[in-house]
Amino acid sequence: MKQTVVIVAGGIGARMGGELPKQFLLLNDYPLIFHTIRSFYRFNDQFNFIVVLPESQFDYWKDLCKKYAFAIPCQIIAGGETRFHSVKNGLSIVADGALVAIHDAVRPFVAHATIQRCFEMAKEKKSAIPVVPVVNSVRQGTFLQNKSISRADLHIVQTPQVFDATLLKKAYTIPYNVLFTDDAAVFEAAGHQIFLTEGNIENIKITLPIDILLAEQLIKTGFLTN
Amino acid sequence: MKQTVVIVAGGIGARMGGELPKQFLLLNDYPLIFHTIRSFYRFNDQFNFIVVLPESQFDYWKDLCKKYAFAIPCQIIAGGETRFHSVKNGLSIVADGALVAIHDAVRPFVAHATIQRCFEMAKEKKSAIPVVPVVNSVRQGTFLQNKSISRADLHIVQTPQVFDATLLKKAYTIPYNVLFTDDAAVFEAAGHQIFLTEGNIENIKITLPIDILLAEQLIKTGFLTN
Repeated sequence: MKQTVVIVAGGIGARMGGELPKQFLLLNDYPLIFHTIRSFYRFNDQFNFIVVLPESQFDYWKDLCKKYAFAIPCQIIAGGETRFHSVKNGLSIVADGALVAIHDAVRPFVAHATIQRCFEMAKEKKSAIPVVPVVNSVRQGTFLQNKSISRADLHIVQTPQVFDATLLKKAYTIPYNVLFTDDAAVFEAAGHQIFLTEGNIENIKITLPIDILLAEQLIKTGFLTN
Repeated sequence: MKQTVVIVAGGIGARMGGELPKQFLLLNDYPLIFHTIRSFYRFNDQFNFIVVLPESQFDYWKDLCKKYAFAIPCQIIAGGETRFHSVKNGLSIVADGALVAIHDAVRPFVAHATIQRCFEMAKEKKSAIPVVPVVNSVRQGTFLQNKSISRADLHIVQTPQVFDATLLKKAYTIPYNVLFTDDAAVFEAAGHQIFLTEGNIENIKITLPIDILLAEQLIKTGFLTN
């Protein structure tokens, strides 16, 4: 049975300060989301790709595919109000029984080694979340009341988050909670154990203008591993 | 009374994978640590600068100052085994009664607005720590046993961390603890309240090779505010 990769592109571009949703920003003259899908396709051209997009962007997606001759087969499905609802929509067309990876459209630089670690661990453990260490000090609380927290115990979560599809789909039937900022939180809330594995430091999420600068530099300097 | 800025450059370069300690790496053909000191000097040329360096790097520092015609007056003092011990050494030559800022030598892009916010808040509250929000999901624990943690309650800590010098020097008389990854943790352990203020997103810590790439791009693209 084919493994599925759900590419979640809910962004409407507000945080980047521009008109263009961030998943469509050009990196090295090529749309960000195509870089992302291509990373997975190069790892395994038999993945089943589902792209979750705001419905208002469907036409733009088609135009882009044509313009950039992007021909990797993808099923497109409409996103929802939050990331939770978008992923839930994407999962609605995922078959039971195989593994499913949920990946942010705006993380173009996932390493093949990370993809491999996640699928291998999820095959054995039912969940696999790639993480990187925290290099800065961290405080918890408000600006006025806060405390130091050990950074050695903290892990910055990346994607792809890979799960047993049957269990993840069932987990996504629980009611939405504002704390569900990723799939691991949903899977955990459904009572399952979360297993972490090593991500890759350049697997950054393009969220702020500063991230685009870094992304362009990463491409130009040959820093990337795949 | 003059306010003091302690620039902490304990690094021996291990994490960058090169021979050159990271504080001496060239950014735009100019040593990183000089960029950092210059940011403060341009904000206020009356700051009293103390630079904490491994003793083995004193000669290299002198050579660099000459080579790059770096003439901002700095007192140089030897670092210690950890960041805690280095800061403690630096504080040993800070006068009581004024404000003191502790700043990482490898954070060249501190904004003047951040410096101003920190000094203003510390003047009123005795402590001021610049922070930026966490944009990724975070998990707490080990790779096998961990839990989701609300990122809205977490703050990534930057420097300059500004304090009442008398109180900080006293705080640094408590015994070393491995959890003291910054000055706020020490000041807090001595029983004082920590006040947070807004940092600036480009005030990155140059720790990994990927950070140097971003730093170079920030300089080239005119992203910086000062």
